[in-house]
Amino acid sequence: GIDGPSLLADIAETAAFGGTAKGGICRLTLGAEDRQVRDWLGTQAAALGGVLTVDSMGNQFIHLSGSDPALPPLVMGSHLDTQPTGGKYDGIYGVLAGLSALRALQRSGYRMRHPVELVNWTNEEGSRFAPAMMSSGVFTGAFTQAQAYGTQDARGTTFGQALEEIGYRGAEPCGQHPVRAYFELHIEQGPILEKEGITIGAVTGVQAIRWFDLRLSGQEAHAGTTPRAMRRDALLAAAHVMIMIDEIAQSYGADTRATVGVIQVQPGSTNVVPGEVEMSLDLRHPDDDVLAAVEERIRMEATRQAEQQGVTLSMKRIWDSPAVHFDPDCVEMVRRAASLMGQSCRDIVSGAGHDAAYMGHICPTAMIFIPCRDGLSHNEAEHAEAGDIVAGANVLLHAIMAADAH
Amino acid sequence: GIDGPSLLADIAETAAFGGTAKGGICRLTLGAEDRQVRDWLGTQAAALGGVLTVDSMGNQFIHLSGSDPALPPLVMGSHLDTQPTGGKYDGIYGVLAGLSALRALQRSGYRMRHPVELVNWTNEEGSRFAPAMMSSGVFTGAFTQAQAYGTQDARGTTFGQALEEIGYRGAEPCGQHPVRAYFELHIEQGPILEKEGITIGAVTGVQAIRWFDLRLSGQEAHAGTTPRAMRRDALLAAAHVMIMIDEIAQSYGADTRATVGVIQVQPGSTNVVPGEVEMSLDLRHPDDDVLAAVEERIRMEATRQAEQQGVTLSMKRIWDSPAVHFDPDCVEMVRRAASLMGQSCRDIVSGAGHDAAYMGHICPTAMIFIPCRDGLSHNEAEHAEAGDIVAGANVLLHAIMAADAH
Ligand SMILES: NC(=O)NCCC(=O)O
Ligand SMILES: NC(=O)NCCC(=O)O
Repeated sequence: GIDGPSLLADIAETAAFGGTAKGGICRLTLGAEDRQVRDWLGTQAAALGGVLTVDSMGNQFIHLSGSDPALPPLVMGSHLDTQPTGGKYDGIYGVLAGLSALRALQRSGYRMRHPVELVNWTNEEGSRFAPAMMSSGVFTGAFTQAQAYGTQDARGTTFGQALEEIGYRGAEPCGQHPVRAYFELHIEQGPILEKEGITIGAVTGVQAIRWFDLRLSGQEAHAGTTPRAMRRDALLAAAHVMIMIDEIAQSYGADTRATVGVIQVQPGSTNVVPGEVEMSLDLRHPDDDVLAAVEERIRMEATRQAEQQGVTLSMKRIWDSPAVHFDPDCVEMVRRAASLMGQSCRDIVSGAGHDAAYMGHICPTAMIFIPCRDGLSHNEAEHAEAGDIVAGANVLLHAIMAADAH
Repeated sequence: GIDGPSLLADIAETAAFGGTAKGGICRLTLGAEDRQVRDWLGTQAAALGGVLTVDSMGNQFIHLSGSDPALPPLVMGSHLDTQPTGGKYDGIYGVLAGLSALRALQRSGYRMRHPVELVNWTNEEGSRFAPAMMSSGVFTGAFTQAQAYGTQDARGTTFGQALEEIGYRGAEPCGQHPVRAYFELHIEQGPILEKEGITIGAVTGVQAIRWFDLRLSGQEAHAGTTPRAMRRDALLAAAHVMIMIDEIAQSYGADTRATVGVIQVQPGSTNVVPGEVEMSLDLRHPDDDVLAAVEERIRMEATRQAEQQGVTLSMKRIWDSPAVHFDPDCVEMVRRAASLMGQSCRDIVSGAGHDAAYMGHICPTAMIFIPCRDGLSHNEAEHAEAGDIVAGANVLLHAIMAADAH
């Protein structure tokens, strides 16, 4: 089984790369701290006798050979990048638990038929470069590599430049890596498992996600002299649009999620009525059709709402990740592994996007969740219990062994 | 009288320092472009035989001596800094018209009893460093120089550092300059004169202005997993507060102005429910007591509004510029100068703050307004007609001559 103390020590050790005063991690993709943690993972790969490959999107694969050279690898993985206010577990847990699973296999001398691999996906978070799950997206053909390379961060640096700068543009063309099946272990990032006192979630799928860039154009004017009736205030219009979006989302039921996370105002001066606002919108629902209806309704009413303020609105969809249903056999392997380990387990749908969502399009895939405190994630206070962390890693290990036997 | 073509040529020439593609000017205080236009003004001072002094706040004074060395100077002035989306006239017009008035006096050989001076005040706009009218504020004792020097821009550069960097920290202690009376010529920046077809506004005072820093603190959370009921979304709360502020302002009548011009969100990531929002608030009313009532009402209701969203609000007043009533004698000199020049004229209250508002606390002061197109200002499309520009400069010249005779 998994060496629990060493897994917990790895989590603590790597948390220093981008560690924050509040006990979280700020390790934006392709920054200096991301390079540090990648170098660390490379060192671990060498130490356990694995073969490291880096592909053209910077994805790191650590390969352990199996007994049958003809078989494609079983792959475990997640990501090591974080949000600006990230915690110590989101993504990181899945990679470090996969590493501990590789070590457990090596140590036990148990010979798998399939090769086993661990992958660290580049830019899962989508915070510095939109959208999220970018490199598993390129790996599975959802975007082209050229699209990904051209994406800019807030400072105008492209993904391609940033990848070169940290020295992680690898030789292997992204997507040419064979995969037999894919398993991803993650904290739930929501409140369900904790509330029900259940240790393992057998993830049956991922809800649909759409991202939008909204732009509101009004007119800059003097804050002291311009009468209310003459104003075309892009920020006041944005406030009306935000509240309207929230109300529409609530009207489609408690499963609907709508979030404005980024807002930029021009010219951004205390005594100037704002002329331009750009803002993001993240919309989610477990059902593709409902999500499409929510989008349509928002598009119509936001346009009208802005017009009432003398402001024009454009709403551009920049990402569409449809709902995913994982492979029933792989999900069943997770349930059985949990049962074998004596852990409580329930089926669950993921509210967060994961690289597994894209992998599910090209190979049998499933995910394993463990609880996290107060359902809190994308927050420096994110926390998971040591017992759950080790239990989840053992379920991952046994799910992979079951897939090998399948 | 004023040499109209040379005044218009000065406006066109200096518009190149920070000129924008849209025909406006972006010349934030104490930046490289501000240094260029200051250097230009220094060159003009030398050319007309004036004596240039720079004080410890970077204010530039150009001095022409009068026939009676015992008398303090009559001062004309305004500012050469602009908003990020500034036009070619706001502030600039008053300085360059004052320059043309000095030239007219020199050229005519008319000897004034009082010395006459032109001042270019540092940081009138308050966009890079809050608050506005900063250096006339220090000059007149509204703030200390230490407070001003310590003020930081969005990048953390202090006013004091920026002043040193462009080489405009002068030797004369700010405030030790004698002033007999102060006249400031400006575009109206509002719609009244244009609408009524009147060329000259005799400005009787400036309305009250208060600036605030608002901070909303909620909780960062995952945009995909966090149910609506568990969210403490600082940006959604800010949207509710902005709309509430607008409604309260409107309920206090058409003379009330409320503007949120700056908003910053943390962590600012598409898939993170915002945990922190900082925003500015600019509140104005011609009557101090009404403004105090508006502030009190907003403070109470914004706090409640934020609490309803699970968010805490703090509202810190960072600037309080009470309503100002200019010197009746000086205002009368403006009316008479307009009449002498055959220009239509009406009394008007300024909606914008001006250095004259602070100068009014320490010496007899008045202002002269001319119309601007569509009342538009703090906008690159700001425009004033050549005829009005020259007419206003002549009124300034004759008001100063009247003050000399007084
Ligand atoms: N797991 C995770 O937080 N991924 C980020 C993508 C998303 O926004 O759901
Ligand atoms: N004249 C002018 O626009 N000054 C800026 C100060 C203010 O906000 O009113």
